[in-house]
Amino acid sequence: MAGIVVRNIERAAAEVIDGLAQCGVATVHEAQGRIGLLAHHMRPIYPGARVAGSAVTISAPPGDNWMVHVAIEQLGPGDILVLAPTSPCVDGYFGDLLATSAQARGCRGLVIDAGVRDVRDLTQMQFPVWSKAVFAQGTVKATLGSVNVPIVCAGVAIEPGDVIVADDDGVCMVKRADAADVLKKAQAREANEADKRDKLAAGTLGLDIYDMRGKLEQMGLKYV
Amino acid sequence: MAGIVVRNIERAAAEVIDGLAQCGVATVHEAQGRIGLLAHHMRPIYPGARVAGSAVTISAPPGDNWMVHVAIEQLGPGDILVLAPTSPCVDGYFGDLLATSAQARGCRGLVIDAGVRDVRDLTQMQFPVWSKAVFAQGTVKATLGSVNVPIVCAGVAIEPGDVIVADDDGVCMVKRADAADVLKKAQAREANEADKRDKLAAGTLGLDIYDMRGKLEQMGLKYV
Amino acid sequence: MAGIVVRNIERAAAEVIDGLAQCGVATVHEAQGRIGLLAHHMRPIYPGARVAGSAVTISAPPGDNWMVHVAIEQLGPGDILVLAPTSPCVDGYFGDLLATSAQARGCRGLVIDAGVRDVRDLTQMQFPVWSKAVFAQGTVKATLGSVNVPIVCAGVAIEPGDVIVADDDGVCMVKRADAADVLKKAQAREANEADKRDKLAAGTLGLDIYDMRGKLEQMGLKYV
Amino acid sequence: MAGIVVRNIERAAAEVIDGLAQCGVATVHEAQGRIGLLAHHMRPIYPGARVAGSAVTISAPPGDNWMVHVAIEQLGPGDILVLAPTSPCVDGYFGDLLATSAQARGCRGLVIDAGVRDVRDLTQMQFPVWSKAVFAQGTVKATLGSVNVPIVCAGVAIEPGDVIVADDDGVCMVKRADAADVLKKAQAREANEADKRDKLAAGTLGLDIYDMRGKLEQMGLKYV
Amino acid sequence: MAGIVVRNIERAAAEVIDGLAQCGVATVHEAQGRIGLLAHHMRPIYPGARVAGSAVTISAPPGDNWMVHVAIEQLGPGDILVLAPTSPCVDGYFGDLLATSAQARGCRGLVIDAGVRDVRDLTQMQFPVWSKAVFAQGTVKATLGSVNVPIVCAGVAIEPGDVIVADDDGVCMVKRADAADVLKKAQAREANEADKRDKLAAGTLGLDIYDMRGKLEQMGLKYV
Amino acid sequence: MAGIVVRNIERAAAEVIDGLAQCGVATVHEAQGRIGLLAHHMRPIYPGARVAGSAVTISAPPGDNWMVHVAIEQLGPGDILVLAPTSPCVDGYFGDLLATSAQARGCRGLVIDAGVRDVRDLTQMQFPVWSKAVFAQGTVKATLGSVNVPIVCAGVAIEPGDVIVADDDGVCMVKRADAADVLKKAQAREANEADKRDKLAAGTLGLDIYDMRGKLEQMGLKYV
Repeated sequence: MAGIVVRNIERAAAEVIDGLAQCGVATVHEAQGRIGLLAHHMRPIYPGARVAGSAVTISAPPGDNWMVHVAIEQLGPGDILVLAPTSPCVDGYFGDLLATSAQARGCRGLVIDAGVRDVRDLTQMQFPVWSKAVFAQGTVKATLGSVNVPIVCAGVAIEPGDVIVADDDGVCMVKRADAADVLKKAQAREANEADKRDKLAAGTLGLDIYDMRGKLEQMGLKYV
Repeated sequence: MAGIVVRNIERAAAEVIDGLAQCGVATVHEAQGRIGLLAHHMRPIYPGARVAGSAVTISAPPGDNWMVHVAIEQLGPGDILVLAPTSPCVDGYFGDLLATSAQARGCRGLVIDAGVRDVRDLTQMQFPVWSKAVFAQGTVKATLGSVNVPIVCAGVAIEPGDVIVADDDGVCMVKRADAADVLKKAQAREANEADKRDKLAAGTLGLDIYDMRGKLEQMGLKYV
Repeated sequence: MAGIVVRNIERAAAEVIDGLAQCGVATVHEAQGRIGLLAHHMRPIYPGARVAGSAVTISAPPGDNWMVHVAIEQLGPGDILVLAPTSPCVDGYFGDLLATSAQARGCRGLVIDAGVRDVRDLTQMQFPVWSKAVFAQGTVKATLGSVNVPIVCAGVAIEPGDVIVADDDGVCMVKRADAADVLKKAQAREANEADKRDKLAAGTLGLDIYDMRGKLEQMGLKYV
Repeated sequence: MAGIVVRNIERAAAEVIDGLAQCGVATVHEAQGRIGLLAHHMRPIYPGARVAGSAVTISAPPGDNWMVHVAIEQLGPGDILVLAPTSPCVDGYFGDLLATSAQARGCRGLVIDAGVRDVRDLTQMQFPVWSKAVFAQGTVKATLGSVNVPIVCAGVAIEPGDVIVADDDGVCMVKRADAADVLKKAQAREANEADKRDKLAAGTLGLDIYDMRGKLEQMGLKYV
Repeated sequence: MAGIVVRNIERAAAEVIDGLAQCGVATVHEAQGRIGLLAHHMRPIYPGARVAGSAVTISAPPGDNWMVHVAIEQLGPGDILVLAPTSPCVDGYFGDLLATSAQARGCRGLVIDAGVRDVRDLTQMQFPVWSKAVFAQGTVKATLGSVNVPIVCAGVAIEPGDVIVADDDGVCMVKRADAADVLKKAQAREANEADKRDKLAAGTLGLDIYDMRGKLEQMGLKYV
Repeated sequence: MAGIVVRNIERAAAEVIDGLAQCGVATVHEAQGRIGLLAHHMRPIYPGARVAGSAVTISAPPGDNWMVHVAIEQLGPGDILVLAPTSPCVDGYFGDLLATSAQARGCRGLVIDAGVRDVRDLTQMQFPVWSKAVFAQGTVKATLGSVNVPIVCAGVAIEPGDVIVADDDGVCMVKRADAADVLKKAQAREANEADKRDKLAAGTLGLDIYDMRGKLEQMGLKYV
């Protein structure tokens, strides 16, 4: 089944993708009905990055990063590499040389359910990575995988061209076809949140803003 | 058993609480006989925070943050929210809106044996959180829990009003009734440590400062 | 078997050790044939440190840091303490007082397959630590271990005097006898990488630099 | 997105499903190109069961087993329940009462990326379960999920009607449309393996059966 | 704080304890409102045991089983040893000799949030243990702990004399004062379950037995 | 460094090896001073096996079982295969065909810090395995490793020809040169334990057999 590279993938509109980046993971995840969130073991290698991009997917054998080289050729500006190993692995598939190459093609980051290395260099380059591990363990180039095929990465089914949003809260996937709609809902949430934030900062309680007291009483909550 | 909110809790004296914060977790933990330390999976969302406060406790169902809203109304200045789910959970119970509300009431931070989200915003707000996970996963508001009841959080039995001390080393609980006494012991340790630190910095060995050589020899230590 | 302190250990040449530090963990690990890497749970307590030194090894009982005091006397300038507990343990064997003492003797850092505490102070002192956990849990001084005996630390067999290289990517061990040779290979890799980095930054693909297209085709890779 | 129950799903032919059960997980997984295997944390509650069936899928909130009741109505003879929580959870969603109900409808087992309880009763009933945990923790019935929608369970994307094969080695998914073809390949492997097993039992080495010596030598393997 | 042995503890009535054993962990846990369940990492060393007894508690240093000897003297017939280490530990605190001694005093089993060894012998003796690990790692006898003091074991606060119920589903604690009341509720559940089990076995659905269809529809569940 | 097969290794005397098997892991581990124990994640695939043998070691790349075929040719009667992957891996390197081949050469079992599959067949064959995981995940044959070189397996440094003892308590390594001496000590322990077991079974306390009361009092233990 391995050994396939899909050259042409469809992508969401650039302004939609950038809009989703601005909203951030938590808002986008809520806006699309609390789906699409990668597992919480996916952590950023440095704090503060917030990006979105189109997924160029990689299905790679454990401990073999050959397909990363193949995938980089398929990158366009604004893409994000998304790698899932075919068996659990923490090896460092990716380092500063591959990041240099990916960045030269306009890649915005890497999401990898495995390991990454050269993180000091990647931090200096401001090439963000969300990974399962930081590990210097080297890999081989001996077995084929595939590029731009559907994968499951950190518990989420991802197709090439789906939108990836990532920040300090983790990584969320938005289906390409839903991206414009999710953006609208996310922006609506944000507008709504600004108002709530002001009220909460002024001391009004969520119990009152969300009108929860009646329902809590009805459910049987007792104050003693 | 769930569905209880205790309104009035007793708290330790403010100056005792603040004194404990200054001593920090490792010193307080030693000073009270190496007890009260929460499990090491409780990590700060950003480095450098050091706080102490009175525990306002929350027992919450997995994936349900309704009780956080209820608990915020019970917060007084100098309190710390302490949440234990009734079953293991990493969902993001708490984000920037709840932090805004808690901060407006004088809350000094959150200790949660589950997940937290919006950590970039929380960092900017300087609202410290010690958690088991960072995870954008949203929660529901469907089932009751309790507020200000005894809980076990990350392996430690905590009652409302107990003092929570938290910094980069983790989180320690001091029983409210013991807080003043523990503070004295912690301050004595600190005074004692300053002197030792000077000697050690000057090159004197712990083996000599603590007079260990005889006992080591008696136990059979061999130098070869 | 415990209860031994070896006083005199051989060390690699200082310039070799310092050269290895400059190359960093990922390069050194590759240069010596992808061996010697400690498990990926060994993480730095703060980002940005990059050190190398001669291992002064400690085999310590779980929850007992007595041997750290013994080991510090054996430290020379440029050494790194390397502690393996005899059974899995996350207790905080080491804090700012021990670090002060170790630093006074020229120690460059600690690698510990267990816990560490006082990490805020250690960060301020710029005393780097790679550990399995940050945990304020105190230890006792009741049972003997050994110093400067062969140990297995985080999956790697280490002898006293072996060279330890550590940075944000983790920790790598180089056998003392191989250190000069590994340094040459690592420096050769670095020189080679600089050239590749330039080409990759200019947009040339790894597929072409490493001449991979033919082999990929022969293995059966299909572009669709 | 939650709140959907799909009533009519297509299933593979019964004789294909039963044939796959006879081949077992390892053979089926190999036969279909080493894909479809659920994560290794999915373990049977008792040894010796080997089943295959059509997936009736459940997407359930953490700690809420309401949808299991809904799913049972959708079961036909030969089906297997497959539950994925929407966030990591180890609660015991399923016990002997639900198993009694499922078994009454011809259900062959449960695959759940969460917890199960009453395992002594389930063992006596010979109702096999593959789960992430055994845990008596009860659940609520407060929030909707969905039944017979696509899910990701233990790292594998599963659609209702896909074939689930499970035994002591774990759990493997075969796409419904591929099931007949995979069965043929699996049976061919089995026939082939019987011959090899005889040769290996007689002392012939795999090195010779698979003609590996030349390739190993060419790769550089040295005997010393 | 360590170094205390409480000689006289109160226990629940023997017939209440035995009644709770018959109900089993899942039923007792439900009957008392889904509280008191130890973490799911507590697993039996062999399947099929179901016991209840009064907790004789042990707070022990990591890797030090001295207090087990002390605790055995405090055992009465029908008791269960419950050990919590003061820091996470998987060492084998307990083996066949200690089990022989405990069994001679009428002890019904061991619940330990650490390791156990000699499990083949313990199985032959039918001395059940619920533990975090099976591990032959030996322990020392160097540091004091306490016996019959309040502990937190696997996430649950337990006082000496509380009732421990344990079977293949895990371990549940019932407060001594609540035991008789919980037994009544558990027995009522069992009676109720027998009737439901018959109906479910006959093919009636839980959806109808529990009258769920209306509420599901009202919540918005859609059948398609 | 990889790509080496050492043909001739020295082994301990057969009667010593068999004697160690009879003593079992816990006794052997104690007899040699509580060293040599593999990590507790190494668990048997079925209960009740107790074996000892000479280690034929395998260093294998992650997800690549080619070297197992090479190692089997090096097996003599009474040997045990011991495999350590060069990076963490849970793939199923070994199944019933390889076991058939190994068993035909007199191999007594497998110790593998990775995964194993076909466990139902292995159980029927009574070919014992201690592993980190049971996982049907297949492997490739693309990259060289080494056979009969020193390895670190599950935290223990093992050389070819060292004695491996394994049972339900885990796996222990005895250095070949120490095996005869360790056997004597282990047998002495066993003789000694038989006497103690009788006394304990008769109700004498360990406190008295080991004469602990004075030391406990001196350490400050208080009975209240």
